[in-house]
Amino acid sequence: MATARIPDLEPQMHRLGLAAREAARAMAAAPRSAKDTALRAGAAALRARAEAILEANASDMAAARARGLSGAMLDRLELTPARVEAMAAGLEAIAELEDPVGTELARWRRPNGLDIARVRVPLGVIGIIYESRPNVTADAGALCVKAGNAAILRGGSESFHSSRAILDCLRAGIRDAGLPEAALQSLPTTDRAAVGIMLGMHEHIDVIVPRGGRSLIERVYAESRIPVLAHLDGNCHVYLHEAAETAMAVEIVRNAKMRRTGICGAAETLLCDRAVAERILPPVLEALIAAGCEIRGDEEVCRIEPRAVPATEEDWRTEYLDAILAVKLVEGIDAAIDHINAWGSHHTDSIVTADRAAAERFLAGVDSAIVMHNASTQFADGGEFGMGAEIGISTGRLHARGPVGVEQLTTFKYVVRGSGQIRPR
Amino acid sequence: MATARIPDLEPQMHRLGLAAREAARAMAAAPRSAKDTALRAGAAALRARAEAILEANASDMAAARARGLSGAMLDRLELTPARVEAMAAGLEAIAELEDPVGTELARWRRPNGLDIARVRVPLGVIGIIYESRPNVTADAGALCVKAGNAAILRGGSESFHSSRAILDCLRAGIRDAGLPEAALQSLPTTDRAAVGIMLGMHEHIDVIVPRGGRSLIERVYAESRIPVLAHLDGNCHVYLHEAAETAMAVEIVRNAKMRRTGICGAAETLLCDRAVAERILPPVLEALIAAGCEIRGDEEVCRIEPRAVPATEEDWRTEYLDAILAVKLVEGIDAAIDHINAWGSHHTDSIVTADRAAAERFLAGVDSAIVMHNASTQFADGGEFGMGAEIGISTGRLHARGPVGVEQLTTFKYVVRGSGQIRPR
Repeated sequence: MATARIPDLEPQMHRLGLAAREAARAMAAAPRSAKDTALRAGAAALRARAEAILEANASDMAAARARGLSGAMLDRLELTPARVEAMAAGLEAIAELEDPVGTELARWRRPNGLDIARVRVPLGVIGIIYESRPNVTADAGALCVKAGNAAILRGGSESFHSSRAILDCLRAGIRDAGLPEAALQSLPTTDRAAVGIMLGMHEHIDVIVPRGGRSLIERVYAESRIPVLAHLDGNCHVYLHEAAETAMAVEIVRNAKMRRTGICGAAETLLCDRAVAERILPPVLEALIAAGCEIRGDEEVCRIEPRAVPATEEDWRTEYLDAILAVKLVEGIDAAIDHINAWGSHHTDSIVTADRAAAERFLAGVDSAIVMHNASTQFADGGEFGMGAEIGISTGRLHARGPVGVEQLTTFKYVVRGSGQIRPR
Repeated sequence: MATARIPDLEPQMHRLGLAAREAARAMAAAPRSAKDTALRAGAAALRARAEAILEANASDMAAARARGLSGAMLDRLELTPARVEAMAAGLEAIAELEDPVGTELARWRRPNGLDIARVRVPLGVIGIIYESRPNVTADAGALCVKAGNAAILRGGSESFHSSRAILDCLRAGIRDAGLPEAALQSLPTTDRAAVGIMLGMHEHIDVIVPRGGRSLIERVYAESRIPVLAHLDGNCHVYLHEAAETAMAVEIVRNAKMRRTGICGAAETLLCDRAVAERILPPVLEALIAAGCEIRGDEEVCRIEPRAVPATEEDWRTEYLDAILAVKLVEGIDAAIDHINAWGSHHTDSIVTADRAAAERFLAGVDSAIVMHNASTQFADGGEFGMGAEIGISTGRLHARGPVGVEQLTTFKYVVRGSGQIRPR
């Protein structure tokens, strides 16, 4: 439901960027108390205006149904009183987090007497591009505020009215705290051209965080002139080492695959040492099949478990996000590590073993943002890591790898204190 | 002096990228001793083959002269026995640095018993694109090796033979240490098309570090599909606060501008509080003019110092890299901070004042990679910061801000150790 095409879109976007940059300076200087007040007042506004938010959402839902959106899309779009309350509680939880800004990360003195400190500061202006979930407006906006940033939000056209109503509440909170409302702005239109302009505004925006499906992320990577923090693929593995305990293997694999199949930390491929496949695979696969999971196995797996269907090479690189698991036998730990590094997406991978030395070998050798021993890959989550809240999980290697929480939305600067030092020849 | 156009350039670049990725895995697993052995053996090879390196350089120099390159370009290109020895000593100094890989940056335990560590690991494959200085081959290559990375080097066509001879020495060192030579590779051709292909190889290269002039950096930013760590502009400021001591102001400004005018940390604009301009500017400008500096002043500055020429708006944003200084009066510290944030390049800016509170206000308010109090901006350098060596100074905000040393060529991963934990609903 795009709004009308705006004739002077470029200058309007430019003004929006300038306003964000100016607001970012005020946010960077804001004390913790002001930022937390803004978040708590925003939570109060969400509760006070819950009815108006649900009405706005009802109009988005009606339009989405008229356009024939899928049930899954509708579910992501829908707000309920409980979901509005969860957003409000989320804002309050973010207010409780430590303020990362101002922390001295390191400090040392040079022989010439210069005192050098590396100090955490906000990133600046963050561009957030997301799809149908309107709650991203609250979650991502609040994390940006907490870290002392300004944000420019571009939600999906389906959630236009819902996101606008939520953003109004957050901006009311910011105003209540005496901070500049322009710290959180949304694009003036859902026209796709605005996203193109946004991705080129490198003088106004410091980092782009896209949240959504693969086609959105790929478009952003391809077009952006601004650095991107994004989650691309979560092709996660569980590897059953020859020293894996059967009962633990059953529990971890079932949980890693089936607890929720649609999240990026869900396991997509199971590797099992050939030497123990006959012992360990039957109960593991039985538990999966009983839970409704389809098994795609290599030749040997299909022999062990006749209900498995034959896997093709494509399966080793696929992120199903569904109740499907690719299963393959490997000849020991090095083969498992090689397979994961070659076919995985460097997101989250776990080894199940009672052999501590083998575990350490796996943890060192697998080149992923998160490597695990005897734990479910579904723990790949900022909240589960104790980071409070996350804006996503980054699969890039620079700046933020893994969960992107409040701390990852900051950078640092060097503060050098002298007493008249000049540099000799 | 481009080599012949290579018909199968794309597949050749692809093979080079694959080899780099494979070598990066071996480098990531290499113990400190092997990496340091490689660097020391590389230094020995540079010394042993100094004559061959100087011969290769002589042929590059002859071709450059024939092409009519400027004296400054020729100076950057030229190698001497002393410069070869400096490269060798540089490799040995990098071998002495702490190994950043494997350091636990943080470690904590969750209520469910999961033990989570954030551990420093190499970045992976680094693409380095540089211009005429052949010593970048040694410096940048060695930093990449020390941090456990692989690197793909693309030097300028003018330094083709010199860089090749230097790279051969580093590769001999890597081979001596039992590490894969493919950890350091150069492009098969100096054809510009190869750079285009390189900037699109996001599956093989994790970060691009360009080193050179503005046009190179801008091309890389515009074309790269890979994250870029680069130094763009160094429009650095010195601000003389009303509480500045005159003698210190004279020393710091002269050093910040004139010690070396061609480096990114050289001051380009001087701001001075209007209230003290009559007292402090005359001796400061006298010292600069005596040292051969041209002054471009605003109206008031031109009245105080008749030898100054009138500045235009363009001067506030210009990085002269020359013996020229823009000078402007401001109405107090907030105006100074606003001017620097609006016109500067967020590189390095310094306040001179005896007032500690004013200094802290400046250090907090100026949004630059390096902010200084009572020190020359020419200290903006990894070596001066005690970081041992640097591959450049990043003016971006993400990942590495300021000097890019060995530590900034790493990333981290999360290592999660459990005992069978699964995630509840």
